[in-house]
Amino acid sequence: MENTVKNQTEAQVISPAQLLEHYQGHRGLTRRVIEAFPEKDFFNYNIGGMRTFAEMTMELLGIAVPGLKEIVTRETTELQEHFEHGNQKSKILERWDQDTEEINKLWGQIELKRFQDHIKLFGQYEGTVQSSIFYFMDNEIHHRGQGYVYLRALGVEPPFFYER
Amino acid sequence: MENTVKNQTEAQVISPAQLLEHYQGHRGLTRRVIEAFPEKDFFNYNIGGMRTFAEMTMELLGIAVPGLKEIVTRETTELQEHFEHGNQKSKILERWDQDTEEINKLWGQIELKRFQDHIKLFGQYEGTVQSSIFYFMDNEIHHRGQGYVYLRALGVEPPFFYER
Repeated sequence: MENTVKNQTEAQVISPAQLLEHYQGHRGLTRRVIEAFPEKDFFNYNIGGMRTFAEMTMELLGIAVPGLKEIVTRETTELQEHFEHGNQKSKILERWDQDTEEINKLWGQIELKRFQDHIKLFGQYEGTVQSSIFYFMDNEIHHRGQGYVYLRALGVEPPFFYER
Repeated sequence: MENTVKNQTEAQVISPAQLLEHYQGHRGLTRRVIEAFPEKDFFNYNIGGMRTFAEMTMELLGIAVPGLKEIVTRETTELQEHFEHGNQKSKILERWDQDTEEINKLWGQIELKRFQDHIKLFGQYEGTVQSSIFYFMDNEIHHRGQGYVYLRALGVEPPFFYER
């Protein structure tokens, strides 16, 4: 975090360190939602023809670290939303935790001034670094909200939304 | 917006003007989700014992303008999640649009340095001005995601998430 902190001489709406904490707080909550799912429902249950929560989770994993890596390295990669998990939640949670560490490392390499840089993520999504990162988060909150409905429909109590 | 813009001499992760645009972009999408609901389902339909999308919308309206007003005036108010709508979506959309204008006005009165101020919103929710505003947005995205599942379960195509 040194890179970002030393650049902050002015007030920030939200500092890079605060935004990381906010993001990881949301990711911690999403992890608890994954944990709350019965394993078979995680991989099989859906409502209204939507994706399973496992498929949504794969999308989140496909975006977060690869997206931040692209922001840091400026090397375009292809969006990849699948990896081998053998229908085991433990495999997905393991990857989730690796990515938590990876996100912390990558974040420290994004200097304050870069948040306003233009970027075309995964070769197709145009915006700024900040708008891309907010998209990662908003998309996670959106799908996690859908996971809450799946859990409620399955009779499972989801974690409190406001606990991070 | 003049207040906030003239204070920005340093790079911002996200500027006050960008954050407002982001918030109003989300609110515009939520408005389209409200519009997409058949009127009777908006007020009556739910899944798994959850609230109707009308009740969730009332919560969003109860938080946004009153919360920002409290941030601007520093006067504590009580959280009020209900108003008379007579089960008419048009009444709720009318209020939604009034609040869009009101949010723009209030936002212009929040100086850059205030985003890091400590606050105890509605007399009970402690945080900073920025963490409170992000809570307003995150909570809206969360419930709107749930609204998407209701719409899909009702066989209605929701608006695209990435269109703001």
